[in-house]
Amino acid sequence: MRIAVIGLGLIGGSVALAARQRLGVEVSGWDADPEAVARAVAREALDVAAPDLQAAVADAEAVVLAAPLGALPRLIAATLKAAPADCVVTDVGSAKRRLQQFHADQRFIGGHPLAGAETAGIEHARADLFEGATWYLTPVANTEGVLYERLYRLLAGIGAQPVAIEAGEHDRMLALVSHLPHVLANVLVQQAASGGEHGRLPATGPSFRDVTRVAGSNSAIWTDIYLSNADALTEALDATIARLTAARELIARADAAVIRGWNERAARDRRRLVDRQLADGPLHELRVAVPNRPGVVAELALALGEADVNITDMALYPAPDGSRGVVALWITGDGERDRAEALIEGAGFLVGRP
Amino acid sequence: MRIAVIGLGLIGGSVALAARQRLGVEVSGWDADPEAVARAVAREALDVAAPDLQAAVADAEAVVLAAPLGALPRLIAATLKAAPADCVVTDVGSAKRRLQQFHADQRFIGGHPLAGAETAGIEHARADLFEGATWYLTPVANTEGVLYERLYRLLAGIGAQPVAIEAGEHDRMLALVSHLPHVLANVLVQQAASGGEHGRLPATGPSFRDVTRVAGSNSAIWTDIYLSNADALTEALDATIARLTAARELIARADAAVIRGWNERAARDRRRLVDRQLADGPLHELRVAVPNRPGVVAELALALGEADVNITDMALYPAPDGSRGVVALWITGDGERDRAEALIEGAGFLVGRP
Repeated sequence: MRIAVIGLGLIGGSVALAARQRLGVEVSGWDADPEAVARAVAREALDVAAPDLQAAVADAEAVVLAAPLGALPRLIAATLKAAPADCVVTDVGSAKRRLQQFHADQRFIGGHPLAGAETAGIEHARADLFEGATWYLTPVANTEGVLYERLYRLLAGIGAQPVAIEAGEHDRMLALVSHLPHVLANVLVQQAASGGEHGRLPATGPSFRDVTRVAGSNSAIWTDIYLSNADALTEALDATIARLTAARELIARADAAVIRGWNERAARDRRRLVDRQLADGPLHELRVAVPNRPGVVAELALALGEADVNITDMALYPAPDGSRGVVALWITGDGERDRAEALIEGAGFLVGRP
Repeated sequence: MRIAVIGLGLIGGSVALAARQRLGVEVSGWDADPEAVARAVAREALDVAAPDLQAAVADAEAVVLAAPLGALPRLIAATLKAAPADCVVTDVGSAKRRLQQFHADQRFIGGHPLAGAETAGIEHARADLFEGATWYLTPVANTEGVLYERLYRLLAGIGAQPVAIEAGEHDRMLALVSHLPHVLANVLVQQAASGGEHGRLPATGPSFRDVTRVAGSNSAIWTDIYLSNADALTEALDATIARLTAARELIARADAAVIRGWNERAARDRRRLVDRQLADGPLHELRVAVPNRPGVVAELALALGEADVNITDMALYPAPDGSRGVVALWITGDGERDRAEALIEGAGFLVGRP
């Protein structure tokens, strides 16, 4: 198979590396930035560094467009014009409804891998970036079956789990679990900081840090995302505003049993959402009191690592003066939780279940 | 000095331990639960295990009421009745405006330490729990100066940093940085899970996990908090709803420059809020790509620990199949960040700045 990768950042570079190394596919590549092309060549991600988009896709059987959201409409149009008649063309943009128009061409199938948002640039590209990752595809009624199957095989071959989804449903889902949390975090930090204009800024603790960690994420990427998924996101925001209004009334009415029920529903809902990502049982949280000196996290992680207990998630809650703190560990599975607890106590730390 | 501690959980137990060990103060204690008293005696937190509240406070110079929010009004009233005429009485509740009425008695000064919410029970009590922690106090115009000074010295003596604040301002601040984030997390998980009633539950990623980590926290404690700070919290929710409505319009209008400006303001605001907690310079985030095997977090933490670089905050972003992931590290100070980067690369990991 011969494929073309357009856009040689983290995602495009990883597709190219994985396709070459895992599938023996011939990869031609192009990027608007000549330096990105040079770095891709240096990383041996390409068989052919093409001089332009047209040359890159000229004899490809599949084209992956891994460019920023804002550049995609123009790129897709140009690619569909230049690519062969039996070539499948896909993209990796995180909003899909706005690209639906291109499905008028049977060769186009929208896509979106849930991977790799944490670091940018081909220097972080890896052949295993997509191992086990959901890769959404948005086929429509007139999608050419042979082309869908070819794309599916390519993505499964580089380790991803392709999942077909309707473009609108994809956008609503991503609005809920990714775009909306970013908006809430932005609003929350702005609200908390606004008090500081007239008086003291509030002291903030670990819960505030967790909830607002994604506030003000990379502006170039996120402006694109907010614009591209504006329909689904504003719809989700309307629902959030309605839910917050209801929560406000519930708290104002001061009925303890109702508030408690509402809070417990949230605990159950989070568990349902987080548990489903985990194959090996429910997620348990352990809280370990530790001196906040260098090396103590290592000690703890080593005690678990040596016994083959894997840490699913972790957060540090340092005390204000940095002298000590609490390490929260999330461990998957009842048995693993019990083993972890025993190991941590054996290492001389106090451990509790919150 | 002789003090009484009423309520022998994590906070009360730590006050008792710290007062005895650090100040040589004589501590009498009482708890409605006889088992809590027995555990406090076993931990040598008390000089006198009193048979009832009245006996505990009878000859105290200071009384610390470390009971759940809901129990405080009754306890404060009973304590003010039983305590000597020159005894200062304080509480540790996380909402202060509802207790303002008790300031009619010159002996009462409301209080709230920002410490210790992560684990419960006297078994986790420590003499250094309050080291460097802000301890809010809510004196009023008629507060007796001698009693305020005595309380201040006691709290500073056990390591805390007492900060005077108006009760209403305290409640507005805590609503913003603690209670509101919990409500937002609750609403977000319920909204994300509600789609699952009719179709598939959405796959969730690291940003969703961060933002919703506090969703559905301990219902007994949080129902109390929502009820006790309902005024400030509903006011904060009104402001959040207004801000979300504005954000919704901003996204719907699709003006890229305005959206970008809004996002960058959030980045600046978060930095202002988080930076002020840190003495030694700005907070930097590093992203390290790692195989998600047991021991790898330890390896990383050890590489930094051995070189005396302290990790201010940490989060794991595992890949969906658990085979690998990204470790986000927050390091305080420019020089420390540069050293950390060099050390991580030296240990053979890929590191980037997001």
